[in-house]
Amino acid sequence: MAFDAIETPFGKNNKTVGGAATYIAWSASNFTRPINQISVVGGDFPKEELKMLQARGVIMDGVQIKEDEKSFFWSGKYHMDMNTRDTLDTQLNVLADFKPVLPDSYQDSEYLMLGNLVPAVQMSVIKQMKKKPLLTVLDTMNFWMETAMEDLENVLKHVDVLMVNDSEARQLSGQYSLVKAAKQILKMGPSFLIIKKGEHGALLFHQEQVFVAPALPLEDVFDPTGAGDTFAGGFIGHIARTKDISFQNMKSAIIVGSAMASFCVEKFGTNRLKEIGHTEIDRRLQQFKELVNFEISLV
Amino acid sequence: MAFDAIETPFGKNNKTVGGAATYIAWSASNFTRPINQISVVGGDFPKEELKMLQARGVIMDGVQIKEDEKSFFWSGKYHMDMNTRDTLDTQLNVLADFKPVLPDSYQDSEYLMLGNLVPAVQMSVIKQMKKKPLLTVLDTMNFWMETAMEDLENVLKHVDVLMVNDSEARQLSGQYSLVKAAKQILKMGPSFLIIKKGEHGALLFHQEQVFVAPALPLEDVFDPTGAGDTFAGGFIGHIARTKDISFQNMKSAIIVGSAMASFCVEKFGTNRLKEIGHTEIDRRLQQFKELVNFEISLV
Repeated sequence: MAFDAIETPFGKNNKTVGGAATYIAWSASNFTRPINQISVVGGDFPKEELKMLQARGVIMDGVQIKEDEKSFFWSGKYHMDMNTRDTLDTQLNVLADFKPVLPDSYQDSEYLMLGNLVPAVQMSVIKQMKKKPLLTVLDTMNFWMETAMEDLENVLKHVDVLMVNDSEARQLSGQYSLVKAAKQILKMGPSFLIIKKGEHGALLFHQEQVFVAPALPLEDVFDPTGAGDTFAGGFIGHIARTKDISFQNMKSAIIVGSAMASFCVEKFGTNRLKEIGHTEIDRRLQQFKELVNFEISLV
Repeated sequence: MAFDAIETPFGKNNKTVGGAATYIAWSASNFTRPINQISVVGGDFPKEELKMLQARGVIMDGVQIKEDEKSFFWSGKYHMDMNTRDTLDTQLNVLADFKPVLPDSYQDSEYLMLGNLVPAVQMSVIKQMKKKPLLTVLDTMNFWMETAMEDLENVLKHVDVLMVNDSEARQLSGQYSLVKAAKQILKMGPSFLIIKKGEHGALLFHQEQVFVAPALPLEDVFDPTGAGDTFAGGFIGHIARTKDISFQNMKSAIIVGSAMASFCVEKFGTNRLKEIGHTEIDRRLQQFKELVNFEISLV
Protein backbone atom coordinates (compact mmCIF):
# COMPACT_ATOMS: atom_id res chain seq x y z
CA MET A 1 0.00 0.00 0.00
CA ALA A 2 1.80 3.05 -1.27
CA PHE A 3 1.82 6.22 -3.35
CA ASP A 4 2.50 6.45 -7.07
CA ALA A 5 3.24 9.39 -9.33
CA ILE A 6 2.30 8.41 -12.84
CA GLU A 7 2.78 10.05 -16.21
CA THR A 8 1.10 8.57 -19.27
CA PRO A 9 0.54 9.98 -22.78
CA PHE A 10 -2.95 10.85 -21.46
CA GLY A 11 -2.03 12.81 -18.38
CA LYS A 12 -0.12 13.14 -15.16
CA ASN A 13 -0.88 12.43 -11.52
CA ASN A 14 1.61 13.58 -8.93
CA LYS A 15 0.45 11.45 -6.01
CA THR A 16 -2.17 8.76 -6.16
CA VAL A 17 -2.84 5.89 -3.79
CA GLY A 18 -1.44 2.63 -5.14
CA GLY A 19 0.60 -0.40 -4.18
CA ALA A 20 0.03 -4.05 -5.05
CA ALA A 21 -1.95 -4.83 -1.88
CA THR A 22 -4.27 -1.87 -2.45
CA TYR A 23 -5.16 -2.95 -5.98
CA ILE A 24 -5.48 -6.61 -4.99
CA ALA A 25 -7.84 -5.75 -2.11
CA TRP A 26 -10.03 -3.43 -4.20
CA SER A 27 -10.31 -6.10 -6.87
CA ALA A 28 -10.72 -9.22 -4.71
CA SER A 29 -13.26 -7.62 -2.37
CA ASN A 30 -15.82 -7.81 -5.19
CA PHE A 31 -15.78 -11.57 -4.80
CA THR A 32 -14.87 -12.59 -1.26
CA ARG A 33 -14.67 -11.33 2.30
CA PRO A 34 -13.13 -11.07 4.74
CA ILE A 35 -9.75 -10.29 3.17
CA ASN A 36 -6.90 -10.47 5.66
CA GLN A 37 -4.58 -7.69 4.51
CA ILE A 38 -0.85 -7.61 5.32
CA SER A 39 1.10 -4.46 4.49
CA VAL A 40 2.88 -1.44 5.91
CA VAL A 41 2.18 2.26 5.44
CA GLY A 42 3.52 5.52 6.81
CA GLY A 43 1.65 8.20 8.72
CA ASP A 44 1.06 9.98 5.40
CA PHE A 45 -1.20 7.23 4.06
CA PRO A 46 -4.79 8.54 4.07
CA LYS A 47 -6.81 6.92 6.86
CA GLU A 48 -9.98 7.24 4.75
CA GLU A 49 -8.38 4.93 2.14
CA LEU A 50 -8.02 2.27 4.81
CA LYS A 51 -11.59 2.91 5.98
CA MET A 52 -13.00 2.53 2.46
CA LEU A 53 -11.35 -0.87 2.21
CA GLN A 54 -12.50 -1.88 5.69
CA ALA A 55 -16.06 -1.10 4.59
CA ARG A 56 -15.54 -3.69 1.83
CA GLY A 57 -14.50 -6.41 4.27
CA VAL A 58 -10.76 -5.86 4.22
CA ILE A 59 -9.30 -6.56 7.68
CA MET A 60 -6.46 -4.23 8.64
CA ASP A 61 -5.05 -6.10 11.68
CA GLY A 62 -1.99 -7.08 9.64
CA VAL A 63 -1.37 -3.60 8.25
CA GLN A 64 1.34 -1.80 10.18
CA ILE A 65 0.98 1.98 10.36
CA LYS A 66 4.28 3.72 11.10
CA GLU A 67 3.05 7.18 11.98
CA ASP A 68 6.49 8.84 11.95
CA GLU A 69 7.57 7.40 8.61
CA LYS A 70 6.57 7.83 4.98
CA SER A 71 4.82 5.33 2.73
CA PHE A 72 6.59 3.67 -0.18
CA PHE A 73 6.66 5.96 -3.22
CA TRP A 74 7.13 5.07 -6.88
CA SER A 75 7.19 7.40 -9.82
CA GLY A 76 7.09 6.25 -13.43
CA LYS A 77 6.45 7.36 -16.96
CA TYR A 78 4.74 5.16 -19.54
CA HIS A 79 5.72 5.09 -23.19
CA MET A 80 3.24 5.33 -26.03
CA ASP A 81 2.78 1.56 -26.23
CA MET A 82 1.76 1.52 -22.53
CA ASN A 83 3.64 -1.76 -22.14
CA THR A 84 7.01 -0.24 -21.32
CA ARG A 85 7.77 2.32 -18.67
CA ASP A 86 10.67 4.14 -17.09
CA THR A 87 11.00 4.29 -13.32
CA LEU A 88 11.75 7.91 -12.43
CA ASP A 89 11.99 7.56 -8.68
CA THR A 90 11.68 4.88 -5.98
CA GLN A 91 11.59 5.78 -2.28
CA LEU A 92 11.43 2.64 -0.13
CA ASN A 93 10.58 4.50 3.10
CA VAL A 94 8.56 2.11 5.32
CA LEU A 95 9.34 -0.82 3.00
CA ALA A 96 13.08 -0.52 3.69
CA ASP A 97 12.82 -2.73 6.78
CA PHE A 98 9.33 -4.20 6.43
CA LYS A 99 8.86 -7.22 8.66
CA PRO A 100 5.36 -8.55 8.09
CA VAL A 101 3.65 -9.91 11.18
CA LEU A 102 0.82 -12.37 10.67
CA PRO A 103 -1.96 -11.77 13.26
CA ASP A 104 -3.29 -14.93 14.93
CA SER A 105 -6.71 -14.18 13.48
CA TYR A 106 -5.22 -14.66 9.97
CA GLN A 107 -4.09 -18.24 10.68
CA ASP A 108 -7.22 -19.77 9.20
CA SER A 109 -6.79 -18.01 5.82
CA GLU A 110 -7.39 -20.57 3.06
CA TYR A 111 -6.00 -18.66 0.10
CA LEU A 112 -2.75 -16.72 0.15
CA MET A 113 -2.01 -14.06 -2.48
CA LEU A 114 1.56 -12.76 -2.26
CA GLY A 115 1.74 -9.46 -4.14
CA ASN A 116 4.94 -8.38 -5.84
CA LEU A 117 7.58 -7.62 -3.16
CA VAL A 118 11.02 -8.67 -1.88
CA PRO A 119 10.99 -12.51 -2.15
CA ALA A 120 12.34 -12.87 1.40
CA VAL A 121 9.40 -10.85 2.73
CA GLN A 122 6.99 -13.04 0.76
CA MET A 123 8.74 -16.08 2.24
CA SER A 124 8.38 -14.71 5.74
CA VAL A 125 4.57 -14.62 5.36
CA ILE A 126 4.50 -18.21 4.08
CA LYS A 127 6.59 -19.31 7.07
CA GLN A 128 4.28 -17.62 9.56
CA MET A 129 1.28 -19.62 8.32
CA LYS A 130 1.01 -22.62 10.66
CA LYS A 131 -1.21 -24.49 8.21
CA LYS A 132 -0.42 -24.52 4.48
CA PRO A 133 -3.17 -22.58 2.65
CA LEU A 134 -5.27 -24.43 0.04
CA LEU A 135 -3.63 -22.28 -2.63
CA THR A 136 -0.64 -19.96 -2.53
CA VAL A 137 -0.23 -17.54 -5.43
CA LEU A 138 2.88 -15.45 -6.01
CA ASP A 139 3.38 -12.38 -8.17
CA THR A 140 6.92 -11.15 -8.78
CA MET A 141 8.94 -9.12 -11.29
CA ASN A 142 12.20 -8.94 -13.22
CA PHE A 143 13.80 -6.70 -10.56
CA TRP A 144 13.91 -9.61 -8.06
CA MET A 145 15.35 -11.95 -10.71
CA GLU A 146 18.24 -9.52 -11.03
CA THR A 147 18.77 -8.71 -7.36
CA ALA A 148 17.44 -11.65 -5.29
CA MET A 149 17.31 -14.68 -7.55
CA GLU A 150 18.28 -17.13 -4.83
CA ASP A 151 15.51 -15.93 -2.50
CA LEU A 152 13.07 -15.98 -5.38
CA GLU A 153 13.98 -19.56 -6.30
CA ASN A 154 13.51 -20.48 -2.68
CA VAL A 155 10.03 -18.97 -2.35
CA LEU A 156 8.99 -20.50 -5.69
CA LYS A 157 9.35 -23.93 -4.09
CA HIS A 158 6.52 -23.04 -1.69
CA VAL A 159 3.91 -21.64 -4.07
CA ASP A 160 1.23 -23.29 -6.20
CA VAL A 161 0.66 -20.56 -8.78
CA LEU A 162 3.22 -18.13 -10.21
CA MET A 163 2.19 -15.00 -12.13
CA VAL A 164 4.72 -13.21 -14.33
CA ASN A 165 4.65 -11.37 -17.64
CA ASP A 166 6.06 -12.85 -20.86
CA SER A 167 9.48 -11.21 -20.69
CA GLU A 168 9.84 -12.23 -17.04
CA ALA A 169 8.93 -15.84 -17.91
CA ARG A 170 11.69 -15.75 -20.52
CA GLN A 171 14.16 -14.20 -18.08
CA LEU A 172 13.34 -16.66 -15.29
CA SER A 173 13.63 -19.74 -17.53
CA GLY A 174 16.28 -18.67 -20.04
CA GLN A 175 13.93 -19.94 -22.78
CA TYR A 176 12.56 -17.80 -25.59
CA SER A 177 9.59 -20.03 -26.47
CA LEU A 178 6.90 -19.49 -23.84
CA VAL A 179 5.92 -23.17 -24.04
CA LYS A 180 9.50 -24.16 -23.21
CA ALA A 181 9.70 -21.42 -20.57
CA ALA A 182 6.56 -22.80 -18.92
CA LYS A 183 7.95 -26.35 -18.84
CA GLN A 184 11.09 -25.05 -17.18
CA ILE A 185 9.27 -22.91 -14.61
CA LEU A 186 6.84 -25.69 -13.68
CA LYS A 187 9.90 -27.65 -12.57
CA MET A 188 10.92 -24.85 -10.17
CA GLY A 189 8.03 -25.34 -7.75
CA PRO A 190 4.68 -23.94 -8.89
CA SER A 191 2.26 -26.39 -10.48
CA PHE A 192 0.42 -23.61 -12.29
CA LEU A 193 2.01 -20.78 -14.28
CA ILE A 194 0.16 -17.71 -15.49
CA ILE A 195 1.95 -15.63 -18.12
CA LYS A 196 0.45 -12.14 -18.45
CA LYS A 197 0.78 -10.55 -21.88
CA GLY A 198 -1.02 -7.21 -21.36
CA GLU A 199 -3.06 -6.32 -24.44
CA HIS A 200 -2.42 -9.82 -25.80
CA GLY A 201 -4.18 -11.59 -22.93
CA ALA A 202 -2.75 -14.30 -20.69
CA LEU A 203 -1.69 -17.94 -20.76
CA LEU A 204 -2.24 -20.59 -18.09
CA PHE A 205 0.04 -23.64 -18.04
CA HIS A 206 -0.50 -26.75 -15.89
CA GLN A 207 1.12 -30.11 -16.61
CA GLU A 208 0.50 -30.68 -20.33
CA GLN A 209 -2.49 -28.35 -20.45
CA VAL A 210 -2.66 -24.79 -21.68
CA PHE A 211 -5.38 -22.14 -21.71
CA VAL A 212 -5.32 -18.90 -23.72
CA ALA A 213 -7.27 -16.00 -22.21
CA PRO A 214 -8.07 -12.99 -24.37
CA ALA A 215 -7.64 -9.37 -23.38
CA LEU A 216 -10.52 -7.04 -24.10
CA PRO A 217 -9.49 -4.82 -27.04
CA LEU A 218 -9.66 -1.31 -25.58
CA GLU A 219 -9.95 2.00 -27.36
CA ASP A 220 -7.67 3.64 -24.81
CA VAL A 221 -5.48 2.34 -22.02
CA PHE A 222 -5.54 5.35 -19.76
CA ASP A 223 -3.17 4.13 -17.03
CA PRO A 224 -1.82 0.56 -16.83
CA THR A 225 -0.50 0.98 -13.25
CA GLY A 226 -1.89 -1.75 -11.02
CA ALA A 227 -3.39 -3.80 -13.86
CA GLY A 228 -1.33 -6.86 -12.91
CA ASP A 229 -2.25 -6.50 -9.23
CA THR A 230 -5.91 -6.02 -10.11
CA PHE A 231 -5.70 -9.16 -12.25
CA ALA A 232 -4.23 -11.02 -9.27
CA GLY A 233 -7.03 -9.74 -7.02
CA GLY A 234 -9.75 -10.89 -9.42
CA PHE A 235 -8.03 -14.25 -9.81
CA ILE A 236 -7.69 -15.04 -6.10
CA GLY A 237 -11.08 -13.47 -5.37
CA HIS A 238 -12.79 -15.83 -7.79
CA ILE A 239 -10.92 -18.84 -6.41
CA ALA A 240 -11.86 -17.91 -2.83
CA ARG A 241 -15.50 -17.37 -3.81
CA THR A 242 -15.82 -20.69 -5.64
CA LYS A 243 -13.48 -22.73 -3.41
CA ASP A 244 -12.29 -24.73 -6.41
CA ILE A 245 -8.61 -24.93 -7.37
CA SER A 246 -9.02 -27.14 -10.47
CA PHE A 247 -7.43 -26.19 -13.81
CA GLN A 248 -10.94 -25.69 -15.21
CA ASN A 249 -11.84 -23.17 -12.50
CA MET A 250 -8.50 -21.38 -12.75
CA LYS A 251 -9.39 -20.64 -16.37
CA SER A 252 -12.51 -18.84 -15.13
CA ALA A 253 -10.41 -17.09 -12.47
CA ILE A 254 -8.11 -15.76 -15.19
CA ILE A 255 -11.09 -14.41 -17.11
CA VAL A 256 -12.30 -12.70 -13.92
CA GLY A 257 -8.80 -11.28 -13.37
CA SER A 258 -8.65 -10.06 -16.97
CA ALA A 259 -12.06 -8.43 -16.68
CA MET A 260 -10.99 -6.63 -13.49
CA ALA A 261 -7.73 -5.48 -15.12
CA SER A 262 -9.67 -4.12 -18.08
CA PHE A 263 -11.54 -1.82 -15.67
CA CYS A 264 -8.38 -0.79 -13.82
CA VAL A 265 -6.72 0.75 -16.89
CA GLU A 266 -9.73 2.91 -17.76
CA LYS A 267 -8.88 5.60 -15.20
CA PHE A 268 -5.92 6.76 -13.10
CA GLY A 269 -4.94 4.66 -10.09
CA THR A 270 -7.74 2.84 -8.26
CA ASN A 271 -10.40 5.34 -9.38
CA ARG A 272 -12.23 3.00 -11.74
CA LEU A 273 -12.11 0.11 -9.28
CA LYS A 274 -13.86 2.30 -6.72
CA GLU A 275 -16.80 2.90 -9.06
CA ILE A 276 -17.71 -0.54 -10.34
CA GLY A 277 -20.09 -3.12 -8.89
CA HIS A 278 -21.52 -6.50 -9.74
CA THR A 279 -23.63 -5.26 -12.63
CA GLU A 280 -20.65 -3.85 -14.53
CA ILE A 281 -18.50 -6.86 -13.68
CA ASP A 282 -21.11 -9.35 -14.89
CA ARG A 283 -21.61 -7.38 -18.09
CA ARG A 284 -17.88 -7.43 -18.77
CA LEU A 285 -17.56 -11.14 -18.01
CA GLN A 286 -20.27 -11.69 -20.62
CA GLN A 287 -18.25 -9.58 -23.07
CA PHE A 288 -15.23 -11.82 -22.52
CA LYS A 289 -17.37 -14.85 -23.25
CA GLU A 290 -18.59 -13.34 -26.53
CA LEU A 291 -15.11 -12.17 -27.46
CA VAL A 292 -13.81 -15.71 -27.98
CA ASN A 293 -17.02 -17.57 -28.80
CA PHE A 294 -16.84 -19.48 -32.09
CA GLU A 295 -18.24 -22.62 -33.68
CA ILE A 296 -16.06 -25.22 -35.33
CA SER A 297 -17.32 -27.51 -38.02
CA LEU A 298 -14.86 -30.29 -38.68
CA VAL A 299 -13.63 -30.69 -42.24
CA MET B 1 4.42 -18.52 -56.87
CA ALA B 2 8.11 -18.08 -56.29
CA PHE B 3 11.35 -19.17 -54.65
CA ASP B 4 12.51 -18.25 -51.16
CA ALA B 5 15.84 -18.58 -49.44
CA ILE B 6 15.23 -18.61 -45.70
CA GLU B 7 17.52 -18.48 -42.72
CA THR B 8 16.10 -19.01 -39.24
CA PRO B 9 17.77 -19.74 -35.90
CA PHE B 10 16.90 -23.37 -36.63
CA GLY B 11 18.45 -23.75 -40.06
CA LYS B 12 18.91 -22.53 -43.58
CA ASN B 13 17.29 -23.34 -46.90
CA ASN B 14 18.85 -21.88 -50.03
CA LYS B 15 15.96 -22.34 -52.42
CA THR B 16 12.50 -23.51 -51.47
CA VAL B 17 9.22 -23.18 -53.34
CA GLY B 18 7.13 -20.37 -51.89
CA GLY B 19 5.08 -17.35 -52.84
CA ALA B 20 1.73 -16.17 -51.44
CA ALA B 21 -0.35 -17.99 -54.10
CA THR B 22 1.47 -21.27 -53.45
CA TYR B 23 0.78 -21.21 -49.70
CA ILE B 24 -2.81 -20.02 -50.20
CA ALA B 25 -3.51 -22.85 -52.68
CA TRP B 26 -1.95 -25.55 -50.50
CA SER B 27 -3.97 -24.34 -47.54
CA ALA B 28 -7.34 -23.63 -49.22
CA SER B 29 -7.35 -26.88 -51.20
CA ASN B 30 -8.04 -28.75 -47.97
CA PHE B 31 -11.47 -27.14 -47.91
CA THR B 32 -12.66 -26.28 -51.40
CA ARG B 33 -12.11 -27.07 -55.07
CA PRO B 34 -11.68 -26.08 -57.79
CA ILE B 35 -9.35 -23.22 -56.94
CA ASN B 36 -8.80 -20.88 -59.88
CA GLN B 37 -5.17 -19.84 -59.51
CA ILE B 38 -3.71 -16.65 -61.01
CA SER B 39 0.04 -16.14 -60.93
CA VAL B 40 3.22 -16.00 -62.99
CA VAL B 41 6.33 -18.19 -62.82
CA GLY B 42 9.55 -18.54 -64.80
CA GLY B 43 10.81 -21.60 -66.64
CA ASP B 44 12.79 -22.49 -63.51
CA PHE B 45 9.65 -23.18 -61.43
CA PRO B 46 9.36 -26.96 -60.96
CA LYS B 47 6.59 -28.39 -63.14
CA GLU B 48 5.98 -31.11 -60.55
CA GLU B 49 5.04 -28.41 -58.01
CA LEU B 50 2.29 -27.24 -60.35
CA LYS B 51 1.20 -30.84 -60.93
CA MET B 52 0.95 -31.54 -57.20
CA LEU B 53 -1.36 -28.57 -56.82
CA GLN B 54 -3.38 -29.58 -59.89
CA ALA B 55 -3.93 -32.96 -58.29
CA ARG B 56 -5.54 -31.09 -55.37
CA GLY B 57 -7.99 -29.26 -57.63
CA VAL B 58 -5.97 -26.13 -58.31
CA ILE B 59 -6.65 -24.92 -61.90
CA MET B 60 -3.57 -23.50 -63.62
CA ASP B 61 -5.23 -21.79 -66.62
CA GLY B 62 -4.51 -18.40 -65.06
CA VAL B 63 -0.88 -19.16 -64.23
CA GLN B 64 1.50 -17.73 -66.83
CA ILE B 65 4.70 -19.70 -67.39
CA LYS B 66 7.44 -17.56 -68.90
CA GLU B 67 9.87 -20.27 -69.97
CA ASP B 68 12.75 -17.89 -70.73
CA GLU B 69 12.53 -15.94 -67.53
CA LYS B 70 13.16 -16.58 -63.85
CA SER B 71 10.64 -16.82 -61.02
CA PHE B 72 10.43 -14.18 -58.32
CA PHE B 73 13.05 -14.75 -55.63
CA TRP B 74 13.10 -13.54 -52.03
CA SER B 75 15.74 -14.13 -49.45
CA GLY B 76 15.37 -13.33 -45.78
CA LYS B 77 16.74 -13.96 -42.36
CA TYR B 78 14.57 -14.25 -39.24
CA HIS B 79 15.60 -12.92 -35.85
CA MET B 80 15.30 -14.92 -32.65
CA ASP B 81 11.78 -13.66 -31.94
CA MET B 82 10.64 -15.00 -35.35
CA ASN B 83 8.41 -11.96 -35.70
CA THR B 84 10.98 -9.69 -37.29
CA ARG B 85 13.10 -10.44 -40.33
CA ASP B 86 15.62 -8.78 -42.62
CA THR B 87 15.18 -8.99 -46.37
CA LEU B 88 18.57 -9.98 -47.80
CA ASP B 89 17.66 -10.05 -51.49
CA THR B 90 14.63 -9.47 -53.73
CA GLN B 91 14.71 -10.37 -57.44
CA LEU B 92 11.44 -9.39 -59.11
CA ASN B 93 12.16 -11.35 -62.33
CA VAL B 94 8.78 -12.37 -63.84
CA LEU B 95 6.93 -10.16 -61.38
CA ALA B 96 8.59 -7.01 -62.77
CA ASP B 97 5.94 -6.66 -65.47
CA PHE B 98 3.26 -9.12 -64.35
CA LYS B 99 -0.05 -8.48 -66.08
CA PRO B 100 -2.55 -10.99 -64.70
CA VAL B 101 -5.03 -12.29 -67.27
CA LEU B 102 -8.31 -13.73 -65.97
CA PRO B 103 -9.35 -16.76 -68.05
CA ASP B 104 -13.04 -16.78 -69.06
CA SER B 105 -13.46 -20.01 -67.13
CA TYR B 106 -12.67 -18.08 -63.92
CA GLN B 107 -15.54 -15.58 -64.37
CA ASP B 108 -17.91 -17.57 -62.20
CA SER B 109 -15.55 -17.54 -59.18
CA GLU B 110 -17.57 -16.68 -56.08
CA TYR B 111 -14.75 -15.90 -53.64
CA LEU B 112 -11.70 -13.83 -54.53
CA MET B 113 -8.53 -14.00 -52.40
CA LEU B 114 -5.95 -11.40 -53.41
CA GLY B 115 -2.58 -12.43 -52.02
CA ASN B 116 -0.03 -9.81 -51.04
CA LEU B 117 1.26 -8.10 -54.23
CA VAL B 118 1.47 -4.70 -55.99
CA PRO B 119 -1.92 -3.05 -55.27
CA ALA B 120 -2.34 -2.10 -58.96
CA VAL B 121 -1.98 -5.76 -59.95
CA GLN B 122 -4.56 -6.76 -57.32
CA MET B 123 -6.85 -4.05 -58.73
CA SER B 124 -6.41 -5.37 -62.26
CA VAL B 125 -7.81 -8.78 -61.20
CA ILE B 126 -10.81 -7.14 -59.50
CA LYS B 127 -11.52 -5.13 -62.68
CA GLN B 128 -11.41 -8.22 -64.89
CA MET B 129 -14.17 -9.91 -62.90
CA LYS B 130 -17.41 -9.13 -64.79
CA LYS B 131 -19.54 -10.03 -61.76
CA LYS B 132 -18.54 -8.89 -58.25
CA PRO B 133 -17.59 -11.98 -56.19
CA LEU B 134 -19.61 -12.76 -53.07
CA LEU B 135 -16.53 -11.91 -51.01
CA THR B 136 -13.25 -10.24 -51.93
CA VAL B 137 -10.39 -10.57 -49.45
CA LEU B 138 -7.16 -8.61 -49.68
CA ASP B 139 -3.80 -9.23 -48.03
CA THR B 140 -1.16 -6.51 -48.21
CA MET B 141 1.93 -5.29 -46.37
CA ASN B 142 3.78 -2.23 -45.10
CA PHE B 143 5.97 -2.05 -48.25
CA TRP B 144 2.94 -0.99 -50.38
CA MET B 145 1.90 1.59 -47.77
CA GLU B 146 5.30 3.19 -48.26
CA THR B 147 5.59 2.89 -52.06
CA ALA B 148 2.04 2.71 -53.49
CA MET B 149 -0.33 4.15 -50.89
CA GLU B 150 -2.64 5.78 -53.45
CA ASP B 151 -3.10 2.50 -55.35
CA LEU B 152 -3.62 0.67 -52.08
CA GLU B 153 -6.27 3.13 -50.93
CA ASN B 154 -7.97 2.68 -54.29
CA VAL B 155 -8.06 -1.12 -54.17
CA LEU B 156 -9.26 -1.01 -50.53
CA LYS B 157 -12.49 0.62 -51.77
CA HIS B 158 -13.27 -2.59 -53.67
CA VAL B 159 -12.63 -5.27 -51.04
CA ASP B 160 -14.81 -6.71 -48.28
CA VAL B 161 -12.11 -8.10 -45.99
CA LEU B 162 -8.64 -6.67 -45.34
CA MET B 163 -5.92 -8.71 -43.65
CA VAL B 164 -2.88 -6.96 -42.16
CA ASN B 165 -0.65 -7.42 -39.15
CA ASP B 166 -0.79 -5.16 -36.09
CA SER B 167 2.04 -2.82 -37.06
CA GLU B 168 0.57 -2.48 -40.56
CA ALA B 169 -2.86 -1.64 -39.12
CA ARG B 170 -1.19 1.09 -37.09
CA GLN B 171 0.75 2.36 -40.11
CA LEU B 172 -2.30 2.37 -42.40
CA SER B 173 -4.52 4.19 -39.91
CA GLY B 174 -2.06 6.40 -38.08
CA GLN B 175 -3.62 5.17 -34.83
CA TYR B 176 -1.76 3.35 -32.08
CA SER B 177 -4.81 1.74 -30.42
CA LEU B 178 -5.89 -1.22 -32.55
CA VAL B 179 -9.55 -0.49 -31.75
CA LYS B 180 -9.13 3.04 -33.10
CA ALA B 181 -7.07 1.74 -36.03
CA ALA B 182 -9.87 -0.67 -36.92
CA LYS B 183 -12.51 2.06 -36.82
CA GLN B 184 -10.38 4.16 -39.17
CA ILE B 185 -9.66 1.31 -41.60
CA LEU B 186 -13.31 0.21 -41.73
CA LYS B 187 -14.04 3.67 -43.15
CA MET B 188 -11.56 3.11 -46.00
CA GLY B 189 -13.59 0.42 -47.80
CA PRO B 190 -13.49 -3.02 -46.22
CA SER B 191 -16.38 -3.96 -43.95
CA PHE B 192 -14.29 -6.60 -42.16
CA LEU B 193 -10.76 -6.15 -40.83
CA ILE B 194 -8.53 -8.97 -39.67
CA ILE B 195 -5.46 -7.97 -37.66
CA LYS B 196 -2.90 -10.77 -37.49
CA LYS B 197 -0.69 -10.74 -34.38
CA GLY B 198 1.45 -13.85 -34.96
CA GLU B 199 2.00 -15.72 -31.69
CA HIS B 200 -0.62 -13.48 -30.05
CA GLY B 201 -3.46 -14.61 -32.34
CA ALA B 202 -5.71 -12.46 -34.48
CA LEU B 203 -8.53 -9.93 -34.16
CA LEU B 204 -11.62 -9.59 -36.37
CA PHE B 205 -13.44 -6.26 -36.48
CA HIS B 206 -16.82 -5.64 -38.11
CA GLN B 207 -19.05 -2.66 -37.32
CA GLU B 208 -19.14 -2.55 -33.52
CA GLN B 209 -18.23 -6.23 -33.11
CA VAL B 210 -14.88 -7.76 -32.29
CA PHE B 211 -13.60 -11.32 -32.07
CA VAL B 212 -10.32 -12.44 -30.50
CA ALA B 213 -8.78 -15.60 -31.98
CA PRO B 214 -6.02 -17.38 -30.06
CA ALA B 215 -2.79 -18.64 -31.53
CA LEU B 216 -1.73 -22.15 -30.57
CA PRO B 217 1.21 -21.83 -28.14
CA LEU B 218 4.02 -23.66 -29.95
CA GLU B 219 7.19 -25.13 -28.54
CA ASP B 220 9.12 -24.08 -31.66
CA VAL B 221 8.34 -21.90 -34.62
CA PHE B 222 10.60 -23.49 -37.18
CA ASP B 223 9.98 -21.17 -40.13
CA PRO B 224 7.29 -18.47 -40.13
CA THR B 225 7.54 -17.87 -43.91
CA GLY B 226 4.12 -18.21 -45.53
CA ALA B 227 2.20 -18.33 -42.25
CA GLY B 228 0.12 -15.26 -43.19
CA ASP B 229 -0.62 -16.68 -46.65
CA THR B 230 -1.51 -20.06 -45.18
CA PHE B 231 -3.85 -18.28 -42.76
CA ALA B 232 -5.48 -16.51 -45.72
CA GLY B 233 -5.87 -19.83 -47.57
CA GLY B 234 -7.55 -21.49 -44.61
CA PHE B 235 -9.79 -18.46 -44.12
CA ILE B 236 -11.04 -18.25 -47.72
CA GLY B 237 -11.15 -22.05 -48.03
CA HIS B 238 -13.51 -22.29 -45.05
CA ILE B 239 -15.70 -19.46 -46.39
CA ALA B 240 -15.92 -21.13 -49.82
CA ARG B 241 -16.73 -24.50 -48.28
CA THR B 242 -19.48 -23.16 -46.03
CA LYS B 243 -20.78 -20.43 -48.40
CA ASP B 244 -21.54 -18.18 -45.46
CA ILE B 245 -20.07 -14.68 -45.16
CA SER B 246 -21.64 -13.75 -41.81
CA PHE B 247 -19.53 -12.34 -38.96
CA GLN B 248 -20.26 -15.53 -37.00
CA ASN B 249 -18.84 -17.74 -39.77
CA MET B 250 -15.85 -15.48 -40.35
CA LYS B 251 -14.87 -16.19 -36.74
CA SER B 252 -14.76 -19.89 -37.59
CA ALA B 253 -12.83 -19.07 -40.78
CA ILE B 254 -10.21 -17.25 -38.70
CA ILE B 255 -9.84 -20.30 -36.44
CA VAL B 256 -9.39 -22.49 -39.52
CA GLY B 257 -6.81 -20.03 -40.88
CA SER B 258 -5.00 -19.98 -37.53
CA ALA B 259 -4.96 -23.78 -37.38
CA MET B 260 -3.50 -23.98 -40.89
CA ALA B 261 -0.86 -21.35 -40.04
CA SER B 262 0.11 -23.34 -36.94
CA PHE B 263 0.98 -26.28 -39.22
CA CYS B 264 2.86 -24.11 -41.73
CA VAL B 265 5.46 -22.91 -39.23
CA GLU B 266 6.35 -26.44 -38.09
CA LYS B 267 8.62 -27.11 -41.07
CA PHE B 268 10.48 -25.20 -43.78
CA GLY B 269 8.43 -23.77 -46.66
CA THR B 270 5.35 -25.71 -47.71
CA ASN B 271 6.69 -29.05 -46.43
CA ARG B 272 4.29 -29.42 -43.50
CA LEU B 273 1.29 -28.35 -45.59
CA LYS B 274 2.08 -31.15 -48.03
CA GLU B 275 1.86 -33.77 -45.28
CA ILE B 276 -1.35 -32.96 -43.45
CA GLY B 277 -4.90 -34.16 -44.15
CA HIS B 278 -8.36 -33.88 -42.65
CA THR B 279 -7.54 -35.98 -39.58
CA GLU B 280 -4.73 -33.69 -38.44
CA ILE B 281 -6.72 -30.58 -39.30
CA ASP B 282 -9.79 -31.72 -37.36
CA ARG B 283 -7.64 -32.63 -34.38
CA ARG B 284 -6.05 -29.19 -34.39
CA LEU B 285 -9.38 -27.40 -34.76
CA GLN B 286 -10.50 -29.28 -31.67
CA GLN B 287 -7.33 -28.10 -29.88
CA PHE B 288 -8.21 -24.49 -30.70
CA LYS B 289 -11.66 -25.02 -29.24
CA GLU B 290 -10.20 -26.39 -26.01
CA LEU B 291 -7.58 -23.65 -25.86
CA VAL B 292 -10.13 -20.91 -25.19
CA ASN B 293 -12.95 -22.87 -23.58
CA PHE B 294 -13.99 -21.54 -20.19
CA GLU B 295 -17.10 -21.24 -18.03
CA ILE B 296 -18.25 -18.00 -16.50
CA SER B 297 -20.32 -17.82 -13.37
CA LEU B 298 -21.69 -14.35 -12.84
CA VAL B 299 -20.92 -12.64 -9.56
